[in-house]
Amino acid sequence: MELNFRSDNETPAAPAIMEAIEKANRGAAHAYAEDNWSLRLNEAFSERFETDVCVIPMATGTVCNAIALASICPPWGSVYCHRSAHVYCDESGAPEFFGNGLRLVPIDGADGKLPHRPLDKAIRTSAGHGVHSYEPSAVSITQSTESGTVYQASEIANICEVAKAHGLPVHLDGARFANAVASTGSTPAELTWRAGVSLMSFGASKNGCIAAEALLLFDNHERREHIERLRKRSGHLLSKMRYVSAQLLAALEDDLWLHLATHANRQAAKFADAVGNHAGAELEFPVEANEVFVRWTPAGFTTLEEAGVEFLMWPGRDDLARFVFGHSTDERATDKLCKILGGL
Amino acid sequence: MELNFRSDNETPAAPAIMEAIEKANRGAAHAYAEDNWSLRLNEAFSERFETDVCVIPMATGTVCNAIALASICPPWGSVYCHRSAHVYCDESGAPEFFGNGLRLVPIDGADGKLPHRPLDKAIRTSAGHGVHSYEPSAVSITQSTESGTVYQASEIANICEVAKAHGLPVHLDGARFANAVASTGSTPAELTWRAGVSLMSFGASKNGCIAAEALLLFDNHERREHIERLRKRSGHLLSKMRYVSAQLLAALEDDLWLHLATHANRQAAKFADAVGNHAGAELEFPVEANEVFVRWTPAGFTTLEEAGVEFLMWPGRDDLARFVFGHSTDERATDKLCKILGGL
Amino acid sequence: MELNFRSDNETPAAPAIMEAIEKANRGAAHAYAEDNWSLRLNEAFSERFETDVCVIPMATGTVCNAIALASICPPWGSVYCHRSAHVYCDESGAPEFFGNGLRLVPIDGADGKLPHRPLDKAIRTSAGHGVHSYEPSAVSITQSTESGTVYQASEIANICEVAKAHGLPVHLDGARFANAVASTGSTPAELTWRAGVSLMSFGASKNGCIAAEALLLFDNHERREHIERLRKRSGHLLSKMRYVSAQLLAALEDDLWLHLATHANRQAAKFADAVGNHAGAELEFPVEANEVFVRWTPAGFTTLEEAGVEFLMWPGRDDLARFVFGHSTDERATDKLCKILGGL
Amino acid sequence: MELNFRSDNETPAAPAIMEAIEKANRGAAHAYAEDNWSLRLNEAFSERFETDVCVIPMATGTVCNAIALASICPPWGSVYCHRSAHVYCDESGAPEFFGNGLRLVPIDGADGKLPHRPLDKAIRTSAGHGVHSYEPSAVSITQSTESGTVYQASEIANICEVAKAHGLPVHLDGARFANAVASTGSTPAELTWRAGVSLMSFGASKNGCIAAEALLLFDNHERREHIERLRKRSGHLLSKMRYVSAQLLAALEDDLWLHLATHANRQAAKFADAVGNHAGAELEFPVEANEVFVRWTPAGFTTLEEAGVEFLMWPGRDDLARFVFGHSTDERATDKLCKILGGL
Repeated sequence: MELNFRSDNETPAAPAIMEAIEKANRGAAHAYAEDNWSLRLNEAFSERFETDVCVIPMATGTVCNAIALASICPPWGSVYCHRSAHVYCDESGAPEFFGNGLRLVPIDGADGKLPHRPLDKAIRTSAGHGVHSYEPSAVSITQSTESGTVYQASEIANICEVAKAHGLPVHLDGARFANAVASTGSTPAELTWRAGVSLMSFGASKNGCIAAEALLLFDNHERREHIERLRKRSGHLLSKMRYVSAQLLAALEDDLWLHLATHANRQAAKFADAVGNHAGAELEFPVEANEVFVRWTPAGFTTLEEAGVEFLMWPGRDDLARFVFGHSTDERATDKLCKILGGL
Repeated sequence: MELNFRSDNETPAAPAIMEAIEKANRGAAHAYAEDNWSLRLNEAFSERFETDVCVIPMATGTVCNAIALASICPPWGSVYCHRSAHVYCDESGAPEFFGNGLRLVPIDGADGKLPHRPLDKAIRTSAGHGVHSYEPSAVSITQSTESGTVYQASEIANICEVAKAHGLPVHLDGARFANAVASTGSTPAELTWRAGVSLMSFGASKNGCIAAEALLLFDNHERREHIERLRKRSGHLLSKMRYVSAQLLAALEDDLWLHLATHANRQAAKFADAVGNHAGAELEFPVEANEVFVRWTPAGFTTLEEAGVEFLMWPGRDDLARFVFGHSTDERATDKLCKILGGL
Repeated sequence: MELNFRSDNETPAAPAIMEAIEKANRGAAHAYAEDNWSLRLNEAFSERFETDVCVIPMATGTVCNAIALASICPPWGSVYCHRSAHVYCDESGAPEFFGNGLRLVPIDGADGKLPHRPLDKAIRTSAGHGVHSYEPSAVSITQSTESGTVYQASEIANICEVAKAHGLPVHLDGARFANAVASTGSTPAELTWRAGVSLMSFGASKNGCIAAEALLLFDNHERREHIERLRKRSGHLLSKMRYVSAQLLAALEDDLWLHLATHANRQAAKFADAVGNHAGAELEFPVEANEVFVRWTPAGFTTLEEAGVEFLMWPGRDDLARFVFGHSTDERATDKLCKILGGL
Repeated sequence: MELNFRSDNETPAAPAIMEAIEKANRGAAHAYAEDNWSLRLNEAFSERFETDVCVIPMATGTVCNAIALASICPPWGSVYCHRSAHVYCDESGAPEFFGNGLRLVPIDGADGKLPHRPLDKAIRTSAGHGVHSYEPSAVSITQSTESGTVYQASEIANICEVAKAHGLPVHLDGARFANAVASTGSTPAELTWRAGVSLMSFGASKNGCIAAEALLLFDNHERREHIERLRKRSGHLLSKMRYVSAQLLAALEDDLWLHLATHANRQAAKFADAVGNHAGAELEFPVEANEVFVRWTPAGFTTLEEAGVEFLMWPGRDDLARFVFGHSTDERATDKLCKILGGL
C-alpha cells in the first residue's frame, strides 16, 4: 500500500472529475473560454456562493493569485500578507512579475494566520511618505493557511475591517479553501464576501482535479477586463478551456469538492490524534484542515522513512515534517501510518 | 453531421491521448514536473529529433513562444518575424510581457513566409545606432505558417543562414509543426536543428491533445534555467505536470502526431481541390497543411453559412474565410463540405 | 571658428539659462520639486499655453515621452506613430519599458509626418480581435518632425480628429517644439490643445538649456499621480529639481525659447538656400525648422568634412547627411558653411 | 540667518561646482556621454580609488542604485539589505522596476547597520527551495547609513565575506559616502573594493553638486553594457552629460568632496555634543557622519520649531527628529542651533 503523504499536489484526479473530462471530450467546442462549460461557471459559482460572482478559470493557483493581486494593486503598491504565504514564499515572484514590481510585505503571526492588529500597525507605519514609498494597496490571506490551520469567519471579518478602514481590498488564496469550508462548517459565502473578501483564488487542483482553478470576483466585476488581458498576455487563456471549466463544474456538482475535502480533513485529524498520543512527536500547529506539521527528532523521522512512509521534511529544518492528506488518501493508509508511528 | 471547420482549437482530444491521461491518473506522482512522464520527455524527443533535445513542457503555445523569445532576446533586443506571425498578431503582447519590453519587428512576405533577403536587409538597417536603438537579437518563424503554407527545409536553412551571419538564433513556432512534417515528408530534424533552428515551440494541443506543448532546446541547453524560472514565475509550472507530459509522450508514440496531422492535411487538400474546381471561390494561399484560405464573395460565404457550414470570416475582411481541418475531422464531413460548395 | 552642425544636443546652454541656474543656487530650497521654481511652473506654462496646464518637470525628453505614453496606454495597448519617430527609433525601448510591454506601431508618411488617413486605416485594421491583439490606445506625433519639417495646426487637427473618432488621446513629442512654433507663427495653444493634443513633452534641452524638459497635461490632470509615481520609480524625481525648473522658467521668460529657436531656424533656412542653389547637393526634405537633410555624393560629403565641417552622416546611408542649427550657432559659421559648399 | 537642517538635498551647489559647470558651458561638446568630461571619469575615479574603476555617470542616486541592483540580480533574485535602506524605503520600488520584479529582503540591525551574522542566516534560510523561491543574489549596504552611522572597513569586510561565501556580490549605496570617508579616515579603496565591495553608487548631489552621481564598477566591468542599456532605456542618458561629469570631476579635484563632507560632519558633531549635554533631548544613534537623530518630547520639538529651526520630524514619530548638516551649513547657524537648544 502506498504511504505517500508528501503533498496533495501528488494526488491523481477523482473519478468524477475524470468522467467530466471525458464527457467534455465529445465533439467540437468553442475555443478560448467561449465554450458551454466556461459559460456556465458564473451561474454555478454564483449559486454556490449565494451572490453574483464573476468567474475567470485558469490552470494554476499561482497565476490566479498573481493576476488577482495585479488587478488590485498598482506597480507602486504593496500587498500585506502572512510571512508564510504562498504568494510570498513559493511563487518565485509571480505577483511581482504580473504586478510589474509591486511589493509583498510579510507580517508575522502565530499558526500561519495574519493577525489583524499587527496588520493595522504595518499599514499605518508604512504610509505617509508620499511618492517615495510603496502605497498600501491590498491584503492577501490564505485559507486554509500554510500551517494547516483555518480562519473562522469572524477572524476574516476582523482582517477585512482593518483593510477596509485603510481602503484596501482583501484577496483570499483558496488553494485549500475546500478544506476550510469543510472544517468550519461555515458557508462559502460566510468565509468570503460576507466577511468582506473582494476576490479569491478558488483552488481545485489539490482537491481532486488535474488542473483547475478559478479567480472569483465578488465585487468590482469591471476588474474582469484587466484580468482577462493578463490571462491572455501570460499565456493562460487555454484554447481548450472547456476541460478546465468542466473540472470546476464537476467539483461543484453535488458538493463533490466538500466531500473530497471532508475525507482529507478526517484523515489528517486521525493522524493528529496519533501524534497527540505519541510520547515524542508533537504537533507544531493545531490541525484544522488536511495538513499535519509534526515536530520530532531527526532520528524519529528517519525511522518513519525507513518504514516506507513518504512525507516532506520542512526546508531548512531537520526537526519538522509535513504530512498532507488528500481526497484520494486511502483510509487504510492513514491507519497504517498511525500504527507505524504508534509503534515507534 | 457537424460541419465545423472554424479552428483546430475546437477539436476534442484523440482517443489515444485520453487513454494516456487516464493511465497517468493511477496513484500518486511527484509534483512540479518531477514525475515519471515529464522525466521521460528528453529521451522521447531526443529520439524523435535525432539529437540531444532539452524539453520543457507547458500547457499553451503562447507561453512556449513567449518564454522562448525571452530566453534568447534581452529586453532591449528585437525579434524579426513575419507580419502575420502569431507572436506578433495574436498573443496580446505575451513576448513583450515575458521579455520585459523586447520588440517584435514584422516583415512582409508572400504566403505567410519570412523571405530571407528582406530579413537580411531589415536586420542590417536597424543595427548600428548603438545604445539608442533596439539590438537585433533573434528571428522567429512559424511552421506551418499562419497562411497554411509550409517552409521546405532549404527555405528554413536560408533564413537561418541570414540569422547566423548576424549572430542571431532562430526560434520556430511549431503550433502546427506536425502538419508541416506530414506535408513535406522531411524529418523533424531536417526541418529544425539541421537547418539551423536553435529552439522551437512544439505544439500538440491543436493536433489531438487537450493542452500540451513543449519548448525544445536544440542547442545552448543552459537556457533551461532561465526558462524554468520564467515558467514558474508566470504560473506555468503545473503542480500535476504529469498529465501534460503524458499527452506529449502519447502524441509521439508510434508517430500518432504525424498520423493525426496527415489526416488533417488530407482533408484540407480535398477541400482545396474543391475550391480549385469552383467557378467563383479561389484559394488565397497554396494549401500545404491543414488550413484553407478561401477568397470569395460575401454572398457566397453567406450561402455556405446558411447551409450549416461553420468557418472563420477573416477579421476585417468580408471576402476571405479560413477553413481548418483537424485530426478529428470526419472524412464524410469534408466530402459534404465539398459537395455543398460544388453546388453553389 | 567652430563648424559643428552635428546636433543641437551638442550646444552649450544660453547665457540667460546659466544666469537662472546661478540665481537658483542661492541658499536652501525644498527638495523633490517642492521648491519655489517648480511650484511656479503650472502658472508659467498655463499663461503661455492659454489654458490650465499641469506641468511635471524632468531632465530628459526620453523619460517625458516614455512616461507620457505609459500614462495613456495600458501594457496591452498600442501607440501609433511615424516610422521615424524618436519614441520608435531612438529610445532603446523606453516606452516599452515604462509601459510594461506596450507596443509602438510605426506608420509610413512623407516628410516625417504621420498621415491621417493611413493612421485611420491602421487603427481600424488592428482592432476587433479582442483580447488576442493589442488594443489601439494612443497616437504620438513629433513636432517639429524627425525630418526637420513642421505640422501646421490644421494637420495636427486632422490627426487628432482621427484619433478622437477611435477614442485615442494624442501625445506630442516636442523635443523641438520651439522650432515649430517659431516656424509656423501659430501659437503654442493652436499647435497643441486647440488642435486636440492631450499631452506633450516640452523640450528645452536642445534649445538653450542644460537638461530641462516638461510633461504638459492639457486635459485629464488626474493622470498626474500615475506620472509622478513613474517619475519617482524611475529615478527621475531629482532631489534638487529647482535647477531644472529654473531653466524652464527662464526659457519661457520674455519668450527666450522662441527667440533662440527663431535664430536656429534662420540659420537652417540660410543653409537650405545654399543647398538649393548647389548643382549637386539636394534637400531630402523641406526645411521648415532647424534641421537640414542633404542628399549628395559620398565624395561630396567627404570634401565637406575635409574642409572642417562637422555633421552627421545618416546611419546606414552614405548619400545622406543631417545638419542641425542651434541657438548658439554663430551666424558667421553658417555663412562660412554656405560659402564652403558653394565652392565645391 | 537661515536655520535649515532639514536635508542635505536642500543645499545649493558649492561655488567650485558652479564654476565647473560654467567652464563646461563653453562651446560644443559631443552628446550622450561621449564628451571630454565624461571620458575622463574612468581615469579620475581610478586614481582616487586606487584601482581600475569603470564609471557610468547619472543624475540621481535612485537610478544608480536601481540599475546597480538590476545588473547583479535576476528578476527572480533577492537582494538583502537593512530594513531602513533607501532602496527599500524611499525609492518607490525603483529596484523592483528596473529589476523587473526582483525582491528586496529587509534585515533588522542596530544603528542602521546590516549585521553580518543575521545576514548569513537570512541567506541560508531562504535558499534551498529551487525554482519556487527567490534566489539569493546580492547584498546592498548604505554608507554612511540611514541612521547617520558609519561602517568601519572591517565591518564591511565581514559583510562581504558572508556574501562571498554564498556567491553574492555586494553593492554599496554611497549617497553619503564622502561623509563616511571623512569620518573613518579610511581610504575610499579600503571602504569599498579592498573590503570586497563589487560596485557602488557614488553620490555627489547631496554633497555640493546639483545633480551628479556615478555608478562605479570595481570588478566585472562587462556589466557596463547592461547598465548602459538600462540607463538609456530609462531616459537617464542625458544628451548633455558633460554637465554631470564636470560636476563629478570638480568634486574629486583636490578632494573637494572630502573637504565639503568634513565640514558637514563637523557641524553634526558639534550639535551632537549639544544634544549630549542637554537634560531632555537624547541621541537616537551614534553621530558619525552628517546626520543627527534626536529623541525628545513633542513639546520640546515644537519649541525648537517656534524658535525658527527647520528640521524633519521622522514620519510616524512625534518623539524623533532628524537634523542634517551640509557642505553649505554656516558654522554660525550650527552655533546658534546649539545655543537655542541649550536654552530650552
